[in-house]
Amino acid sequence: MSHTNPTTNAPLERLFEFLRFPSVSTDPARAHDVLACAEWLVARLTAMGLEAESHPTAGHPVVLARNTHRAGRPTVLIYGHYDVQPEEPLAAWTTPPFQPVVRDSVIFARGSADNKGQIFAHIEGVAATLAGRGDLPVNLIFLVEGEEEIGSPHLEAFLNAHRESLHCDVVAISDTGMVAPGIPTLTYGLRGIACLELRVHGPAVDLHSGIYGGAVRNPATELARLLASLHTEKGQVAVSGFYDDVRELEAWEREAWAKAPFGEAQIQAVTGVEAAGGEAGYSALERIWGRPTAEVNGLGGGFQGEGTKTVIPKVAFAKLSFRLVPDQDPARVLECVRRHLVAHCPEGVRVEVELGHSGEPYSTDPHSRFGLAAQRALTRALPGREIALIREGGSIPIVNTFKKVLGVETLLLGLALPDCRAHGPDENFPIANFETGIVLNQALLEEISRA
Amino acid sequence: MSHTNPTTNAPLERLFEFLRFPSVSTDPARAHDVLACAEWLVARLTAMGLEAESHPTAGHPVVLARNTHRAGRPTVLIYGHYDVQPEEPLAAWTTPPFQPVVRDSVIFARGSADNKGQIFAHIEGVAATLAGRGDLPVNLIFLVEGEEEIGSPHLEAFLNAHRESLHCDVVAISDTGMVAPGIPTLTYGLRGIACLELRVHGPAVDLHSGIYGGAVRNPATELARLLASLHTEKGQVAVSGFYDDVRELEAWEREAWAKAPFGEAQIQAVTGVEAAGGEAGYSALERIWGRPTAEVNGLGGGFQGEGTKTVIPKVAFAKLSFRLVPDQDPARVLECVRRHLVAHCPEGVRVEVELGHSGEPYSTDPHSRFGLAAQRALTRALPGREIALIREGGSIPIVNTFKKVLGVETLLLGLALPDCRAHGPDENFPIANFETGIVLNQALLEEISRA
Repeated sequence: MSHTNPTTNAPLERLFEFLRFPSVSTDPARAHDVLACAEWLVARLTAMGLEAESHPTAGHPVVLARNTHRAGRPTVLIYGHYDVQPEEPLAAWTTPPFQPVVRDSVIFARGSADNKGQIFAHIEGVAATLAGRGDLPVNLIFLVEGEEEIGSPHLEAFLNAHRESLHCDVVAISDTGMVAPGIPTLTYGLRGIACLELRVHGPAVDLHSGIYGGAVRNPATELARLLASLHTEKGQVAVSGFYDDVRELEAWEREAWAKAPFGEAQIQAVTGVEAAGGEAGYSALERIWGRPTAEVNGLGGGFQGEGTKTVIPKVAFAKLSFRLVPDQDPARVLECVRRHLVAHCPEGVRVEVELGHSGEPYSTDPHSRFGLAAQRALTRALPGREIALIREGGSIPIVNTFKKVLGVETLLLGLALPDCRAHGPDENFPIANFETGIVLNQALLEEISRA
Repeated sequence: MSHTNPTTNAPLERLFEFLRFPSVSTDPARAHDVLACAEWLVARLTAMGLEAESHPTAGHPVVLARNTHRAGRPTVLIYGHYDVQPEEPLAAWTTPPFQPVVRDSVIFARGSADNKGQIFAHIEGVAATLAGRGDLPVNLIFLVEGEEEIGSPHLEAFLNAHRESLHCDVVAISDTGMVAPGIPTLTYGLRGIACLELRVHGPAVDLHSGIYGGAVRNPATELARLLASLHTEKGQVAVSGFYDDVRELEAWEREAWAKAPFGEAQIQAVTGVEAAGGEAGYSALERIWGRPTAEVNGLGGGFQGEGTKTVIPKVAFAKLSFRLVPDQDPARVLECVRRHLVAHCPEGVRVEVELGHSGEPYSTDPHSRFGLAAQRALTRALPGREIALIREGGSIPIVNTFKKVLGVETLLLGLALPDCRAHGPDENFPIANFETGIVLNQALLEEISRA
C-alpha cells in the first residue's frame, strides 16, 4: 500500500498505518486482517515502552498493554477497539475506505472516528509522555478489543478471567462524540435498552376480507391499536409503571443541556423531518438524553406486495425497543409493557410477547473526584470553552460491564464530531480532533494522578 | 386421461371431462388448455342443439351460445366462467386437482365449485329441457368467459361490443353459495370495495433510535395511530361521512338473516378465532352482509428480519380496503378516508395516500317479478325448505357491469356449499348440488317464462 497523503507528522503516519488494516470483525474472510491489526498494535505499544500482549479469545484477540505499575498512584484503564464496521456500500465512498486520505484537514477512512482515531490519540498521548518523561503519572492499562462492532461477545468473560490483573480505579473511553466542533464534552450518562417482539394472532389462516370482514377482529388493526395505546397524546409512554423508576432531571442538567449547540433546528436539519416530536415539557436534548422512549423499530403483517390482496391477515407483528434512563430496570420495564399489551388485547385476538435483548442505563457523577479531573483535562485540551456535560441517547453496554465486573466508573471523553459518519460511507475524523485527543490523554493522566 | 371414477351418469361424465382441462387463466403456460376448454365447451353446447361460438378477446375467449330467439318471451342470459384458479399448493390436495374423483358423493376437483360445476349444471339443465321438449320456454344466452379468475379484464369491452346481440331481460348466475346444505338461497346483494395504500413518511433515512429516539416522530408509531383512529371502541368506522350513504337494513332483512343457520359460532369454528368481533348493535351476518368495513390487509415498515435493529424507520405503510354496502359510492368513501388520514396526521410526519381499485356495491329486489320467479324455481328444486334471502360480503364486479352495460338485474342462485374450498386445495362440489342445479335451471327458465 502506498501513502495517499505523505506527511511528516509521525503520529498521523502511524494512525494511517493503523487505518489501513481492514479489520472488519463481522466478516470471517477478514479474520486474518483483524489478527494482523492486533499484532501491529502490540508491536507499536511495545515499541513505545509498554508491556503489550495479544490475548486470544473465542473470537478476535484482546490487546492489553501496561506500564510498570507502582503502588501509591491510581490505575487507569483506557478502553478502545481496533475492529471496524464493514465498508459497504463501497460505491458511496469518495475515496477507498481503507486508504486513508486527508481532505481539508479531515481524515477520511473506515475506523477514523469509530474507534481507531480516538483510541490511537490516547496511544500517541501515552507515547509522547513516555518519550518526554520516561514514565506516566499513573498506572496504565490499555485494553483494546477486536469485537466491539459485533457486540463484544467475549469481553465480559475476558474481564472476569483477568479481573485481578485488570484491577483499576477508573476507566476512560473515547468512543462517544463532542456535542459540536471544539466543545470539550464529558458524557456522564447513557440510555439503556429493552427489546421485545409483539405478535397479534387472529384467525387460523388469512381470511377473505369480503367473506368475513366485519365479523372477526383484524390482527393488523388490533396491532395498530395496541401500538397506539403505548403513547398519550402528549407523547408520554402510556404504560402503567413505566416511569416509576425514572430519575428526574436535575436543575443543573437542564441548565447545562440548554447551552448545548444542538436542538430541534439541528435535529430537523440532520434527519430531514419537518418538525420535531416527543414528550411534552422537555427539550429535544432532554427527550434524547434524559427521558425513556417506546419505539416501533419495525412492523409487518398481511399482504405487502404490489397492488391489492384483500385478506384479513392471520398475524401481525411489531418489533419494539425501549430506551431507558437511570434508574429504570430493563426486566421491570419489559414486564410492565408485557402486562400492558396483554391487558389491552381485546377478545378475538391473542397477544404473544417475545422478550429480546436488554441493557441497563448508565450514569456516573461528573462532579466526582475523577469526573472533575476529566473536566480539568478537557479544559487543558480545549482551553477557553465551557465544558458540555451531556448524556447520550444510545447505549454502550461495555460501560455497565466494567462497573459490574471491575467495580469502577467510566469517563466518556468523546472526540468524534456529530457528522463523523461512524458506520457509514466517508467516515471521518479531523486532524485537529486527533491532536486534541493526544493532548487530552496527557492532561487526563496527570489530572487523575493528582485527583 | 383415464376416468378415476367411472360412472354411468352421463351429465356427471361430461362434467368430469370439463373438469379435466387445467384451464388456469392466470398461467400463460396454460393458455392452450384454456383455449381447448373453450373449444370443448362450444362443441358440447352445439351438440345440445344451441348455436355456439367461441369469441376471441385480447385475452382468453368468451363462449356464447343461444337457442333460436322468438318474440314474446323473455330473454335470459346465464353467465359463468370456464377458467379456474391455480391449483397450488399441489401437495395439499388429497387427489390430483385435474383428475376429478367422487368421495362420499362429493366431487373433488379444481373448478368443481368455482365455477365449472355450477355453470355446467345450467348447461345440463338446458340439455335436458331441449332433449325432452325440443325447445326452451325462454330466449336463452349462455355467456361463459375464461378470465373471471383474473378479474374479467376484457368482459366489459366485450359486452359493449356485443350489446345488441346480448340484449336480455335478466341475468342469472350460479357463482355464489348456499347458506347451508340443502337451503335454497337467493343472493340479492353484494358489498362493493374501495382500496388505498397509506404511507407515513418521516426522516430522510432510517434513524438510530438511540441517537434520535424521543425527539422525532416515528412513522411506524404514527401509522399505528392513524390505523387505530379508523375505528371507535364500538367497532364503528370513525371516518367522518363514511356512513352517510349507507342504506339501513330493513326489518324483513334482519328477520330473514336471523333465521340463517350461520352466525358467530360457525364463524369461530371456520376461522379459528376465539371470539367474534365487529360493529356493536349488529349480528355477525349483518356485519358481513349489510355493513361496511375498514380493513388493514397488510402493513409494513422498518426492520422485519430476525432479532433486533434499533431504527426509527423512514417510512411505514398499510394497505387498506373498505367493503361497501348500498348506496355507498367508492370514490366518495375514499375521499372521506383520505381527508380523515390527512387531518389526523401530526406535524413531523407526512401522509401519502395512493388510491387503488374499487367496485360498487350491488343490490336487487328479491321480490321483483324475476326475483319471485327465482324464488319459485328454488322451491321447486329444493322443496319443503324456506328460502334464504341473503346478501354476501364479497364483491362480484361483473354484476355491476351487466347492470351498467345491459341495463339488467342479476339473479344470484348459488349452488356451492360454505366448505367448498373454492380457490383452495380439495375444492369440492356435492353430486347432489350438481343435480339440484340441473333441476333449478329447468324450473328457473319455466318460472321466468311465466313471470
